[in-house]
Amino acid sequence: MYREAPVAAIVYRGNVVENTHIAHIAVVDAQGRRLCGFGDPSRVTLARSAAKPAQALAVMETGALERFGLDDADLALMCASHNSEARHIQRALAMLAKSGAQESDLRCGGHPPISEAVHRTWIKTDFTPTPACSNCSGKHAGMLAAARAIGEPVQDYHLPQHPLQAHVKRTMADVCALPDDAIQWAIDGCNLPTPAFPLERLAFLYARLADAAGLDDSAASPRNAALARIYRAMTSHPALVAGEGRFCTALMRAFAGELVGKAGAEACYAIGLRAAGRPGTLPGQGAVGVAVKVEDGNKTILYAIVCEILKRLQIGTAEQREMLAAFHRPKLLNTRQVETGRIELTFSLE
Amino acid sequence: MYREAPVAAIVYRGNVVENTHIAHIAVVDAQGRRLCGFGDPSRVTLARSAAKPAQALAVMETGALERFGLDDADLALMCASHNSEARHIQRALAMLAKSGAQESDLRCGGHPPISEAVHRTWIKTDFTPTPACSNCSGKHAGMLAAARAIGEPVQDYHLPQHPLQAHVKRTMADVCALPDDAIQWAIDGCNLPTPAFPLERLAFLYARLADAAGLDDSAASPRNAALARIYRAMTSHPALVAGEGRFCTALMRAFAGELVGKAGAEACYAIGLRAAGRPGTLPGQGAVGVAVKVEDGNKTILYAIVCEILKRLQIGTAEQREMLAAFHRPKLLNTRQVETGRIELTFSLE
Repeated sequence: MYREAPVAAIVYRGNVVENTHIAHIAVVDAQGRRLCGFGDPSRVTLARSAAKPAQALAVMETGALERFGLDDADLALMCASHNSEARHIQRALAMLAKSGAQESDLRCGGHPPISEAVHRTWIKTDFTPTPACSNCSGKHAGMLAAARAIGEPVQDYHLPQHPLQAHVKRTMADVCALPDDAIQWAIDGCNLPTPAFPLERLAFLYARLADAAGLDDSAASPRNAALARIYRAMTSHPALVAGEGRFCTALMRAFAGELVGKAGAEACYAIGLRAAGRPGTLPGQGAVGVAVKVEDGNKTILYAIVCEILKRLQIGTAEQREMLAAFHRPKLLNTRQVETGRIELTFSLE
Repeated sequence: MYREAPVAAIVYRGNVVENTHIAHIAVVDAQGRRLCGFGDPSRVTLARSAAKPAQALAVMETGALERFGLDDADLALMCASHNSEARHIQRALAMLAKSGAQESDLRCGGHPPISEAVHRTWIKTDFTPTPACSNCSGKHAGMLAAARAIGEPVQDYHLPQHPLQAHVKRTMADVCALPDDAIQWAIDGCNLPTPAFPLERLAFLYARLADAAGLDDSAASPRNAALARIYRAMTSHPALVAGEGRFCTALMRAFAGELVGKAGAEACYAIGLRAAGRPGTLPGQGAVGVAVKVEDGNKTILYAIVCEILKRLQIGTAEQREMLAAFHRPKLLNTRQVETGRIELTFSLE
């Protein structure tokens, strides 16, 4: 099977090509209009955890936050793929307590943590992770609260046929401005349904988040007020969304509220940039959404591409972008700390 | 940058394409004639640790094995990317002692081990890996013995300009039947020079190993006798070449001397199949060499492709191939042990 492929990155060892990576990029405005891109901006993409803000929106629209007193930090954890640091696990457990749920109600499983530091601690203490330790435990705690808020059984809240997931599916399609049947669903790593739709619709979702964040709250529709609250929750609590050493946290810290960013498993990324930060490289006005999918799932390449897009489009200041240098130009060192090669980013934005 | 790409594997989540992977395959005979392939069989490829048998040959041709009493198990470790299990580390240290070298003479560095089980032990005991723990410590111990055998200083044995590496370069070109200047060199993860040449020449190297293993020792040239000894050393000590849970070890155990196989970092693989095992799917006679490179460096995909090649070419029995089922058809499970998708192998052998 042969196919025309958009090569976005080449990894050299010395002067020899070691690996190449294919990727797709979509850049759109808050109306979903394509501003630029690379590869196939309409590639049907499993958004994985990059879909969490839309899943959180569905939870919010059940009234679960008000009913159970869930705050903005809880909302940030609902949008997180966290490190399983103590602050993340403790908050997930507190969220469960607020809605009267038990940890045993969670239908996500424990797993080795994303954080290498946490991993070492768990091994040293013979700790076996429980469901609240899942990097998605905030999303699941939110889903449990939402199931209760709509008066449905909490049991099997994760199954596609549960009324809560039917509500999530409608919300997802609605906020992405897609017909319900235009989204395909599969099973995520954490056991919830996960949506697949064109990459540029993921960019549009994030443009909407950033657009809503720029609206006057008093004039905003309930939907836009909810989207603005998600934007503020994530950008105000970047360490809850991922954790120490993680790209999402570093990115949102560097840009201090100017953009929201979230990774999905298998190298998917989405950014929503507020209108105030829209660079002169993109004609027109308003918020901007960016989405990237690396075809082979390589995270190192993903983060390098995202940083390079920020640079090419001149988003933020050079100082802000330089705070991400370790992700933008990761050093390829061997076991004697000798530099063995480099990554060349070969995509264009057209 | 757009390029025609040979898609060898598609990973589905549910019915949605999550990732795709590009790969190149070369299948040749012991004269280097192309039998079949996929993608670009002449792709210039960094062989990485798949080049170790040729590096071991260069060491052997200095007379180092006889001079320092290095045996076949030591030779297997020279060809290894080992797990850093106790047996590997102890043998590396014993090899150093035989040639009068110290661990501090090694120019490879310690690193987290390939084996997850060993990794856990090291973390639990606060163990900091030393150079003898490097997965390449056998190769480095062999290089130190070889430097001494040719009467050169052991210091800086790893640098491209050291006389030993000049000898390795000539041997590599010679055994691959390439002009010296047709091989490009870069720096490996373990700090030694690492060669890059067309993938089908890597397949040819392994066909030569398997071909030599089928010759009558008394009639064989010194070069062929050395190649046959490398083949026997690796296939007689599959656990030294990698270790528990590793593909190379499982493959060579399953095929019990019928083939030799070795992985290189960033998803490169080579197999040499003895003439006696040549399947009817390949017309002609004699030993066969197979080499594979996954363009993005994905190991899971690499092993699945290698197993599928064995199946497509009907190499070995169904029972032998079934012993590799966990590598051929790895289960894609989420954190609740629910199967989320599958890998479809889309390459053809033409």
